[in-house]
Amino acid sequence: MRSEEFRKCGYEAVDWIANYMEQLEADAVRPVLSQVQPGEIYAAIPSSPPEQSESFDAMMRDLDTLIMPGITHWRSPSFFGYFPSNVSGPAILGELLAAGIGAQGMLWATSPACTEVEMRMMDWLVEACGLPSHFLSRGPGGGVIQGSASEAAVCALVAAREAAQVASDHLCGYISKQTHSSIEKAWKVLGLPVENLRKIETCGDGSFDCEALESAIQTDQANGLRPCFAVGTIGTTSQTAIDPIRALGEICRKCQLWLHVDGAYGGSAMVCPELRWMIDGLELANSYCFNPHKWLLVNFDCDCFFVSDRRPLNAAMSILPEYLRNAATESGKVIDYRDWQIPLGRRFRALKLWMTIRYYGTEGLRKFIRHKIELGQTLASLVDESLQFVRVAGRTRVPDLALVCFYHRDGDAKTKEILERCNASGEMMLSHTVLKMASGEKRYVIRMHTASALTEAEHITAAWRKICRCAE
Amino acid sequence: MRSEEFRKCGYEAVDWIANYMEQLEADAVRPVLSQVQPGEIYAAIPSSPPEQSESFDAMMRDLDTLIMPGITHWRSPSFFGYFPSNVSGPAILGELLAAGIGAQGMLWATSPACTEVEMRMMDWLVEACGLPSHFLSRGPGGGVIQGSASEAAVCALVAAREAAQVASDHLCGYISKQTHSSIEKAWKVLGLPVENLRKIETCGDGSFDCEALESAIQTDQANGLRPCFAVGTIGTTSQTAIDPIRALGEICRKCQLWLHVDGAYGGSAMVCPELRWMIDGLELANSYCFNPHKWLLVNFDCDCFFVSDRRPLNAAMSILPEYLRNAATESGKVIDYRDWQIPLGRRFRALKLWMTIRYYGTEGLRKFIRHKIELGQTLASLVDESLQFVRVAGRTRVPDLALVCFYHRDGDAKTKEILERCNASGEMMLSHTVLKMASGEKRYVIRMHTASALTEAEHITAAWRKICRCAE
Repeated sequence: MRSEEFRKCGYEAVDWIANYMEQLEADAVRPVLSQVQPGEIYAAIPSSPPEQSESFDAMMRDLDTLIMPGITHWRSPSFFGYFPSNVSGPAILGELLAAGIGAQGMLWATSPACTEVEMRMMDWLVEACGLPSHFLSRGPGGGVIQGSASEAAVCALVAAREAAQVASDHLCGYISKQTHSSIEKAWKVLGLPVENLRKIETCGDGSFDCEALESAIQTDQANGLRPCFAVGTIGTTSQTAIDPIRALGEICRKCQLWLHVDGAYGGSAMVCPELRWMIDGLELANSYCFNPHKWLLVNFDCDCFFVSDRRPLNAAMSILPEYLRNAATESGKVIDYRDWQIPLGRRFRALKLWMTIRYYGTEGLRKFIRHKIELGQTLASLVDESLQFVRVAGRTRVPDLALVCFYHRDGDAKTKEILERCNASGEMMLSHTVLKMASGEKRYVIRMHTASALTEAEHITAAWRKICRCAE
Repeated sequence: MRSEEFRKCGYEAVDWIANYMEQLEADAVRPVLSQVQPGEIYAAIPSSPPEQSESFDAMMRDLDTLIMPGITHWRSPSFFGYFPSNVSGPAILGELLAAGIGAQGMLWATSPACTEVEMRMMDWLVEACGLPSHFLSRGPGGGVIQGSASEAAVCALVAAREAAQVASDHLCGYISKQTHSSIEKAWKVLGLPVENLRKIETCGDGSFDCEALESAIQTDQANGLRPCFAVGTIGTTSQTAIDPIRALGEICRKCQLWLHVDGAYGGSAMVCPELRWMIDGLELANSYCFNPHKWLLVNFDCDCFFVSDRRPLNAAMSILPEYLRNAATESGKVIDYRDWQIPLGRRFRALKLWMTIRYYGTEGLRKFIRHKIELGQTLASLVDESLQFVRVAGRTRVPDLALVCFYHRDGDAKTKEILERCNASGEMMLSHTVLKMASGEKRYVIRMHTASALTEAEHITAAWRKICRCAE
């Protein structure tokens, strides 16, 4: 495709997205949750690739008629499911420009800007989020963009194993019952003994029970095992519970465990100083990650992963074949991010972060987060005022991280029926989880976040009315 | 950013890329290899994030003045280093549209189109490349997009370990001395004993020595170890050597090893039937990958990974927490690609593949590959005609995969000096490797591929003239 045609087609694609944004803003994109049946989209695409070239216009038509019915609209203001996967104009354009430049930043030498913009963006986020200074790139640690918190978890665990220098079958890990499944997956990927990954009980608010942790570590030590890895979470997936990072950190220091802190969702909110009590003690963590692609307006994929000491990670990840040798690497003066991750190749993801942070400024990012938290509080009030629904509160009475969990008084079957009716209506997307109540009993609850970029009070109230109607 | 502003800024970004494409086509982008010093770009970016919002125009200015000097131009027609990281207009626009849609395809249910377009694209590539039919998604196996061949290698090894069901410290793996370093990295990531990864000798043409492989397997078996994994390559990184896949496959079948075939670079060329002798025997492989982001005009990242039986991979990768449960998954009628990879989240990468294949058609893709191979043959002739340089030929006398390796008669120091002078000139980008000659002696050689999307005969001849001048 030559430049003139690219210009024309590029404008078309930009217009298409702008039109989509307008429909999204008008909350006119329906159904929010795709209603296609398994196999429908697959069957609609020809079974063989075309022999001859097709026009861009034909593809744009098919995008509308054939692809979009199979899309669940994560950008809809009425998308309340899972965690959001936020997107913004500057991030989309940063992604576009990175694709257009087409540079590959596996080594510093293969495009110094890819590496050094990334180093600076990681440093910016340390400052913007009030993170410990040993995460800065000029110190012994540093930050790197990973594709997802799952990949960050694998890297953290690889580094922890490297640091422990003990036979794998003796290693023990500690997560809470609310820790994200990606940690268990990382543990399996590394081939560590699954029976040595302890799932520690949570307290009433869903947070890591540190007493139970300490006692589990002691038991394992007594049995000749080597406790090596624990994970704390800032905003668990099920209910945005906040683990006590300082207490976890102190136990991990004392017992020589690697502490990884997973702030995949909650971490973005640390741009607001009033919320930084959640990361109190983070200077005791060996690694930390959060996902700007969840709640900081950067499109997927963008997970920021920090280590307090880069050496164990680099030692485990670095292999230097002849064809990658170069003077810059050998000088020791540069960072080669391939030694911070599993893949060798990497695209220029720092560009979208650079454009997003600059476009909003830290002030704009704080405003964005605070607004979404307010919306969560609006939703919480609606639930609290209702006679039919019960809200599950966390450590603080109000929802601090724009997620509200609630259930219907008539029990799980009723709650599930309401969720299914709401999703089938096409008017919104809700997801669910199962939570342990203070009584010990487990409940199916609706999880509803208010953190999507386009969500406003009117969408919350409209959704709430619909939920109440579906309960009738 | 509201839609009207997005439209305006989007046009600007498209224009910027179109202008860049025009400069690239005119071979006017200089220096090809960035000449900045370590720390230069980092220092040019303010040390703190901006508090206030900045304009998109300010960023576009900074992109030119501040970022681009630190970019090595992988899209330049005079970029001959590493393997190419090819890009095309439709792929860039597919990436743009995927970012604009912002859907996250971790589960079928979270956007059925993300999954089903991907299934269909993987099937299209099975047909377009003449791959074994058990890689089709309707059979026991199937394909999935990974970020890179490194991630595919981790997945293949995880599945092989799962299938072997033997204690990890007994497992042995077999690669050749030219196998890509990502396999060794995957082996380390999984925590398998590094002393059990055998690096088997290569034949004179750089390909896997099957006799040496068989004897190594027998030795390990005799020592009570469990040979479980071998890797064959279609186009090794150092010299695009072609491993004998059928012979490897027969040994692996007989000895119950998982055979993974890495076609990261060479695999794209399989769109040309006349080259499919390279994958003769691929039906004996358990897994296979190739990177359309290297040589099939799709921008990074896009690695296509196929398995003949998806069960061991899914068994190893699947964990289903409550918050991800859904009716479609439970029906067993859908593919959830999260169970085929390490990350949970995934962006809609199939869209750029769909747009690229349709835009070029299989005919256009074949034409593209054949043209680049012809250019490689042109370059080979220039080297062969020269009195100063010696070309290292592979299995066939002509370079089949658009990569030419050569050295100066005066030896390694001279060859290295020439490479450094060429790269410092800014007129091109070359990379190197070290190859074992038929004599057993090792030589530093220049690797020069002709596979970049914009490279034409005139760029090859101009580069060759410069190389000869640098040798004077």
